[in-house]
Amino acid sequence: MAQQGLFITLEGGEGAGKSTAMSFVEERLREAGVDIVCTREPGGTRLGEQLRETLLAPSEIAIDPLAELLMMFAARAQHLSECIIPALNRGQWVLCDRFTDATYAYQGAGRNIGEAPVGVLEDLVQGELRPDLILLLDVPAEVGLSRARGRGALDRFELEDQAFFERVRQSYLSRARRSSGRYQIIDAAAELSEVESALEAVVKDLIACPPLVQV
Amino acid sequence: MAQQGLFITLEGGEGAGKSTAMSFVEERLREAGVDIVCTREPGGTRLGEQLRETLLAPSEIAIDPLAELLMMFAARAQHLSECIIPALNRGQWVLCDRFTDATYAYQGAGRNIGEAPVGVLEDLVQGELRPDLILLLDVPAEVGLSRARGRGALDRFELEDQAFFERVRQSYLSRARRSSGRYQIIDAAAELSEVESALEAVVKDLIACPPLVQV
Repeated sequence: MAQQGLFITLEGGEGAGKSTAMSFVEERLREAGVDIVCTREPGGTRLGEQLRETLLAPSEIAIDPLAELLMMFAARAQHLSECIIPALNRGQWVLCDRFTDATYAYQGAGRNIGEAPVGVLEDLVQGELRPDLILLLDVPAEVGLSRARGRGALDRFELEDQAFFERVRQSYLSRARRSSGRYQIIDAAAELSEVESALEAVVKDLIACPPLVQV
Repeated sequence: MAQQGLFITLEGGEGAGKSTAMSFVEERLREAGVDIVCTREPGGTRLGEQLRETLLAPSEIAIDPLAELLMMFAARAQHLSECIIPALNRGQWVLCDRFTDATYAYQGAGRNIGEAPVGVLEDLVQGELRPDLILLLDVPAEVGLSRARGRGALDRFELEDQAFFERVRQSYLSRARRSSGRYQIIDAAAELSEVESALEAVVKDLIACPPLVQV
C-alpha cells in the first residue's frame, strides 16, 4: 500500500489569523511540491456547507448545545468519508481549517458540554484517525475578538462574549500541552512577519522530516 | 413535583398507515380529556424541520450513513430540549410520529450501521428518557411499499429497495419482542376498521391504567 498523506489541521479562536495562515502554509507546501487538498470545517462538502450555514448564521433559533455538537460531527462524518479519507488514501496531504480540536474548544469548553461527549463522538466518527499535526494559532481572547469585530458582520459564534472565548482558548492550550507531540503552538498575537517565520520553520521541518504516518 | 406526562411514540415502515393512526389516537385521547402535544421526527422544531428537509429530499448528494445518523440525533436533541421534555414536565402527554426506534430500524438496520452506534447516541442524547409506550404498526414490507408508492412523490427513504424495508421491519419487530412491555404491535395489514379497533383498545387501556411514569 502507498504511503498515506499527512493530515494537518489549523486551529485557533476568532481573529487568530487562520485564513492568512492557511494561504501561507498552502503556498509553502505547494512550492515544495506537496500534493495538497485544502478544506475547512464545518463544511468541505455540499452537505457540510449546508450544515455550516445553519450553524453559523445568526438566527432567532436557539440551537441546543448538544444538537450543535451532533451537527458538527455530522458534517465531519460526511467530510471524512467524502473528502479527507479518500485524499489521504491517495497519498495527498490534507490541510484543514479547523477540525475536532475546535469542537473540544467551542462546544466542549465554550458551550460547557464537557470533553466526554466530544470524545464519544470523536471515537464514533473518526475511529483511530487523528491529525498528524495541529497548528494552533494562539492569541489572547480580547485581542482576537477585537480583530474579528473589526472585520464587519459577525457569525453566531463571534457574537459570544469574552468569557466564551477565554474558555475556547484555554481548551486549545490545555489539549496542546497534554499531547505536545502533535501540536505546534504559534504566537498569533505577534507581528504577521513573525507569525509567518514561525509557520515557515514548521513547514520546513515538516518537509524535511514528516511525522510517521500509520499506513 | 407534578405527575409527568406520558410519552407515546408511533412507529412503522412506509405505508403502515401512521398518519391515519396518529389522527385517530390523537382524537381519542383529546375526547378523553388528555392534554396532548402531537409532533414528529425528524422535525418538530424549526431546526429539526430544516434537517428533515435535507434528510428526506431526494438529492444528488449521497449522505454518509453516519452523517445521516448524527443529523437524526441532532434533530432529536433539539426536539427533546425545545418541545418534548418541557411538555412532559408540564404534565402534557406527547404523541410523536417516529422516534429512536425508527433510528434503530432505518439507520441501524436499514443502513447496516448496527445497533451499537445508535445506542451510544441514544444514551448521549436521551439520558434515561425512553418512550412509555411504542405503538408499532406492522405491515409486510411489500404491502407497505406498494401502498407508499401509490401515494405519488417518494422521499429519499421511500426510494430504497425492498431488502432495506425488510431489514427495517425485522428491526422493529425484534426490538418489540425483546422488550414487550413498552410495545404494542398492531397488525397494520388488516382492514382500517380492524386497525382502528385495535388502537381504540390500546387507548382505552392507556386511559384506564396508564403505565407508571418516573417523576
